[in-house]
Amino acid sequence: MKGHAEKSVVPVDVGAVRPPLSGSTRVRVRYCECDPMGVVHHAAYIPWLEIGRTDLLRESGVSYAHLERMGVFLVVAKLDARFRRPVLYDDVVEVRTRVRAASRVKIEHEYGVVVVERGGKACEEPAAAASTTLACVDREGRVSELPEWLRGP
Amino acid sequence: MKGHAEKSVVPVDVGAVRPPLSGSTRVRVRYCECDPMGVVHHAAYIPWLEIGRTDLLRESGVSYAHLERMGVFLVVAKLDARFRRPVLYDDVVEVRTRVRAASRVKIEHEYGVVVVERGGKACEEPAAAASTTLACVDREGRVSELPEWLRGP
Amino acid sequence: MKGHAEKSVVPVDVGAVRPPLSGSTRVRVRYCECDPMGVVHHAAYIPWLEIGRTDLLRESGVSYAHLERMGVFLVVAKLDARFRRPVLYDDVVEVRTRVRAASRVKIEHEYGVVVVERGGKACEEPAAAASTTLACVDREGRVSELPEWLRGP
Amino acid sequence: MKGHAEKSVVPVDVGAVRPPLSGSTRVRVRYCECDPMGVVHHAAYIPWLEIGRTDLLRESGVSYAHLERMGVFLVVAKLDARFRRPVLYDDVVEVRTRVRAASRVKIEHEYGVVVVERGGKACEEPAAAASTTLACVDREGRVSELPEWLRGP
Repeated sequence: MKGHAEKSVVPVDVGAVRPPLSGSTRVRVRYCECDPMGVVHHAAYIPWLEIGRTDLLRESGVSYAHLERMGVFLVVAKLDARFRRPVLYDDVVEVRTRVRAASRVKIEHEYGVVVVERGGKACEEPAAAASTTLACVDREGRVSELPEWLRGP
Repeated sequence: MKGHAEKSVVPVDVGAVRPPLSGSTRVRVRYCECDPMGVVHHAAYIPWLEIGRTDLLRESGVSYAHLERMGVFLVVAKLDARFRRPVLYDDVVEVRTRVRAASRVKIEHEYGVVVVERGGKACEEPAAAASTTLACVDREGRVSELPEWLRGP
Repeated sequence: MKGHAEKSVVPVDVGAVRPPLSGSTRVRVRYCECDPMGVVHHAAYIPWLEIGRTDLLRESGVSYAHLERMGVFLVVAKLDARFRRPVLYDDVVEVRTRVRAASRVKIEHEYGVVVVERGGKACEEPAAAASTTLACVDREGRVSELPEWLRGP
Repeated sequence: MKGHAEKSVVPVDVGAVRPPLSGSTRVRVRYCECDPMGVVHHAAYIPWLEIGRTDLLRESGVSYAHLERMGVFLVVAKLDARFRRPVLYDDVVEVRTRVRAASRVKIEHEYGVVVVERGGKACEEPAAAASTTLACVDREGRVSELPEWLRGP
């Protein structure tokens, strides 16, 4: 039943604009992302990393949603995170994402998670650092090659 | 890429055993389900209700996973919940589920969420009550009839 | 350990500006908010409602985070939702929030969840409607009166 | 408002029984833990690891909830995960947890996540491996020493 509301897909020329190699995205912390210690639960950072890397892709004019409709699925094979300072409810964090390496079959990203607003005041407080390795699979879940366009220069 | 690890499906005779009309399931509260007030966040109850109604189904010998592989998708059309008393981290809650009504196109469940263990001691503290209405859709997301077997007596 | 990074709180004059009675907020759908049907899981709408009502509050210059530091906790006592049309990954939804009623001890909100961007194109597709009733509790979890400032005109 | 339903805490002799150095816990995959690829989203594994290590603790007769009431908070400082094979909705996974190292200020765990039931049939399919490093903080969020009892032999 996947994507049942989207019937026709106009293919875009994914080669036109390569995704940038770095970028940043802001996210305001949700109440439900915080735990009884009054800080963001460590699992709640993981979706922010995903937002960081998909927003990189979006800047090239091709969303990850579009990639999936073309049969390109990116799966997380490896994830590393260091949590340095707590993030609080209502903070605004900036996810700073960089492509560290890309090969025929995988792409590695690095992330910095920085608190840039707390209590309504601007700040710059590094909270966490992370990296992920994505592999590419097809509709049947078989490992496949990354589109050349994604591999970067 | 849905269900890519499950290639062949042996159809079961879903008519053999009707799902029971009521039942209960226990869930231990996860740390990440609790919020800065030190209690379970209201959104975290919603997956418990889903566990309650799918466990009812499972007792008939047919899992919801199997229904989906047969092309039967149940979607939540309506959800009502009353939150009466807080549930704490590490509590064990019992979800008591009952089929309230079932027609050709929808099925209604009622739920009681009761804390049955707190701090290692048995208790019986009603925490929330809820109800849902599910509709049935096919692989393309079109509303369709519930399998007769699901509609109950 | 709540709020351990915030030691001193400068009290604000919460009476200065009343929160508006209606407003709207946009949220882009996260991949992890979608389920195997390829649509947003019904539980994932609930945090969006919370964002809607806390953003209303923020417009008055007082965040919910600040209210909690003053010892005012708002808890969800009642939640009703109708899910009308699926929301997809990468959609932008607008949460349109309105205060329906406010008394000495509770405040009711109504919400419309509308898809306003899909596949990069603007649209206006109502997806869900919901309402919540919040009660006010103090640091010890005892039901207390809402700050007069919150009760509206 | 933390723990507002628990007023008095009877201190237990935490030295009586050391937590075991390894153990396992079973979790059935929830529908909302799965994503549009039809498999468990990588962020949903993280709470399972937390269940694994808190269940280890519980076997000693002292729950993590109790530790927090005594003012001992364990925070995740480091997390590494390798995702090898997809986990599906309704699978039963076993989280196999082992204390790898413990010092005066931190404790390291290793985890294996293994699918042990799929489609109602027993299996043994390693899906992921992970490790975490926890640090200990007090009520004010200051790094402090781990209780000796937790450090192991």
